[in-house]
Order: sequence, then C-alpha cells, then structure tokens
Amino acid sequence: MTAHEARLLSRQNCITNTSGLAPGYLQANLLILPSKYARHFHDLCLRNPVSCPLLGITPPGDPHSVRPSSCIQTQDFDIRSDFPMYRVYSKGKCIGRQRDLYSVWTDTDDYVGFLIGCSFSFEDALAEAGLQPRHQKTGTVVAMYRSNIPLLPAGVFTGARCIVSMRPYKPEDVERVRDVTRPYLSTHGEPVAWGWDGAKKLGIENVHRPDFGEPQVFEEGEIPVFWACGVTPQMAVESAGEKIDGLVFAHEPGNMLVTDWTTDDLWRLREGTI
Amino acid sequence: MTAHEARLLSRQNCITNTSGLAPGYLQANLLILPSKYARHFHDLCLRNPVSCPLLGITPPGDPHSVRPSSCIQTQDFDIRSDFPMYRVYSKGKCIGRQRDLYSVWTDTDDYVGFLIGCSFSFEDALAEAGLQPRHQKTGTVVAMYRSNIPLLPAGVFTGARCIVSMRPYKPEDVERVRDVTRPYLSTHGEPVAWGWDGAKKLGIENVHRPDFGEPQVFEEGEIPVFWACGVTPQMAVESAGEKIDGLVFAHEPGNMLVTDWTTDDLWRLREGTI
Repeated sequence: MTAHEARLLSRQNCITNTSGLAPGYLQANLLILPSKYARHFHDLCLRNPVSCPLLGITPPGDPHSVRPSSCIQTQDFDIRSDFPMYRVYSKGKCIGRQRDLYSVWTDTDDYVGFLIGCSFSFEDALAEAGLQPRHQKTGTVVAMYRSNIPLLPAGVFTGARCIVSMRPYKPEDVERVRDVTRPYLSTHGEPVAWGWDGAKKLGIENVHRPDFGEPQVFEEGEIPVFWACGVTPQMAVESAGEKIDGLVFAHEPGNMLVTDWTTDDLWRLREGTI
Repeated sequence: MTAHEARLLSRQNCITNTSGLAPGYLQANLLILPSKYARHFHDLCLRNPVSCPLLGITPPGDPHSVRPSSCIQTQDFDIRSDFPMYRVYSKGKCIGRQRDLYSVWTDTDDYVGFLIGCSFSFEDALAEAGLQPRHQKTGTVVAMYRSNIPLLPAGVFTGARCIVSMRPYKPEDVERVRDVTRPYLSTHGEPVAWGWDGAKKLGIENVHRPDFGEPQVFEEGEIPVFWACGVTPQMAVESAGEKIDGLVFAHEPGNMLVTDWTTDDLWRLREGTI
C-alpha cells in the first residue's frame, strides 16, 4: 500500500488505527492552531525537539499543502480529513472527537497545522534488530506516562511536562536499544531514561499503572526503558488552557497521518538537506 | 573593533574577558572532543538546543576552519588559540587551564571543535529595550546554578543536568523580557523558568548562593528569571567521566570566541538559511 492509498483509507473512515499501515512510510502526530499561536508553537517544537520533533507545517488557512513539499507529494491532500480521527480542544480541554474537521475549519479560518514525528519508525528498526517492542508482540497499546521532564516554555505554552512511552527490555540490551534508536532524531531518537531508578527520576510512581495506553508485561529481570512521546504537544495545549482563544485540533492517539517520507528521508532531515 | 581583530587580541593573550568586546558580533562557547565522540556530542546538541545551541563545527583534525564557513570568514583562524583561555578536562575533571592548545592538539590529533551559542547577544537586546541585566550594571559575573532539568542523554553523555543563569526582574516586566529574548533561539532564547516558585521547581535551594559566577542584588519586589546556560556542555563532559578516553577542551567561562556572525545571522540561522 502506498502512503497516498493509506491516507485515502483514513479519509474514507475505513480504518481507526494506523499502526502497521503502509510499512516503510513515516507517520505523523498532529496539532492545528489559530495562526496567531503558530510562531509560539513553532518555537516550542524547536526548543523541545525530542518530544516535539517537527516534520512539516501547513501554510495559514491552507489545509492542502505541507512544507517541505516532499513530505506530502500529491495535490490530493486535506489535513482536515486524512487522519482517521481528530480531537477538538477548547480552553485546554478535549471537548470532542470528529472523523474530519470540515465543519470547524472553514474557508475563512487561518489555521496552521504542525506534523510531529512518531515512534513507529524506530519500532520497525528495533524489530529488525531482534528487539521487537513488547506491545507489538502482545497487540496492546504502548504504555505512556506523565513525566517530570519540563517542556521548555515558548510564549503561551508554559508549565507543561513531557509524556514518555515505555518499552521493557533486558538490562544487557539497553545499550543496543539506545544505539538502534539514536539516529532517529526526528522521531524521538534514543531513550530519555531507563531502569527502575530512571522511572523514579522521571517521577513515575508505578510503572504498572500508565497514565495512557495499556500496562506492559515485564519478563524476568527486565527493566523499563522510556522515550519521549508525541502526545506531549497535547499536554502543552492543556497547560496553555485559557491562554489560547479559539479551537485547537489534534489527532486521536494511534490515528496518525501516513506521510510520503520514508526512513531514508529521516537521514536527510538529520543532515538538514530536505 | 572587528571580530577578526578581537580574535587576534585573544590569540595574543591581550585580554581575559570578552564581555563587551566587538559589540554586535556573536560570541561562542567551546567544546573540543576526540572525533570518536563527535557524533554523540552533536546528537546531544541537537536534542538539547536550548542549553547547547550549535553554531558551528570544525572538521576532524582541522583547527583552522568552521562549518558553516560564514561563521568565521577569514583563513587566519585557529580554534586552539583564538579564545583567550582554555580548560583541559581528563576523565570528567578539569585538570588545568591554558592560554592555547598547541601543546595538546598536535598535527596527528583528530579533534573536533563545537561552537555553542552564548547569551551575550540577547543581553544587548535586553539593554536596548530598557531591561539591562543587573550584572551588567553592577559589573559582576552573572549568577549560575545547577538545575534539575535533565540534559536528554545522547551516547556517552548521560546523567547531566542543565546549568541555568539568572537575572532579577520585576514581575510586571517578565512577559516583556520573555518577548525580547524569545527570537534568540540560537543563543538560549526565552527563559526556562521564573519566580521564586520557578527557582524551587528547578531545585535551586538558595538563589543568593549561586554555584558559579557571583550573587546578584535583588531590588524591592524583584523575582529571579532563569535562562539555559552555555556552561552546560562542560557538565555533560563531567557526567560522562571515564567514558571519554582522551583529553577534552573547553573555553574558560567568560573567555569566549568572537565570531563573524551578527544578530542578523541569528535570524537566518533561525530560518535555516545559513
């Protein structure tokens, strides 16, 4: 399946989870804001690239194109429909879920969309290295936690903290896990912490009770390994609360955009040649 | 004075503090490592751009040029001498200070130098906006603290925390201070925390007893405002400790490199057009 075909399936509401869809293509998280907050959110991404790695931006009021254009290579694109499911935020609270955003983003609105990197890419690399993430094997949703790592503030976005995802590994595999995921800078890169001590330092009291997703099974001797997570931008919107006037849209976790970029493009992103 | 003239003064050991030297030109912090650790340190900068904003890199073993070349525009350059004073680190400890690095970086060494942004630029902007930093007025060294903000790990660089600098301001001026410094993304940008509560959240127990630099005088009603600080890379080297085999060099704090870049180049850096 091509990325374009995957986006059409999402647009036609034929799927609700993009995990494993169109293998080889990068998937993206989403945040859409009124243009007057776009510069602040852009700065937030540039200041916090591990949790909010910026892949692309839509011009104000234009839902049909992404810069850089290599990210979405067809004219037949609409950021208001090409994710399977959206969340609507008002004053920092999620007030609803919608299959598309046509009714809330009309021709006169000047919304700006941000595409944020997603960990699906490095999960494929881990699996290829014989280090398949537990939640892939067990068919569960990855465990996610609120951490105490501050999201460094930018404009109206103050006071938020990073969300982290967790995958269990044997202590002797941690260095290899770090090495495999390190190059994926635009999709969260290497872990931010590991071990039971690492969990404590992140302020996570009970690893077996995640704040989002599902608890993961630990095998004998395994320890938790934590990565920054693309749900973090939604926490930034929650923390901004009433400082944001107007609606904000995000993707429903797990319901991502399939882009035209592949892992090869990640290396070019890393070198700044896209 | 041109930037080149300022570098020659540093090379000839005619100055020991570059604050206020060659106004208008950007100054840079330094870290020099054996090339085998360069990729890890590069990743550390890309993952932590607020405390470690990368301005330029020297090719392995070549002390005479910087990429991008617009940063240093003359052939008459030597990163081993053009800072007024250097620190030498071994196994995570500062073991000495030298006026130049000729004796320790010889023709057969493959060292890579990293130039890191410095807050002098936004201090000029604050002064122009009528918000001159206290330490400029009192002729003291800015107060610096070890914070609890984790430096997100990269390769051998694990377990470090960010250093922050502090300037006192009136609470009603904080939003303007944030606005003035926000665009300076490559020189630490806007504050990471502010207020007495902010100090507590950073784990700073006594603002009047900084870990580096000098205590600052607070006027009636003023609160502390904290920025990420370019001394952080040296903390990363200390934390890496014995994981780094060989010598590491850094600048002596306050003894910076004057580059050929000006504030205008900062805007181009921000837009990725350098």
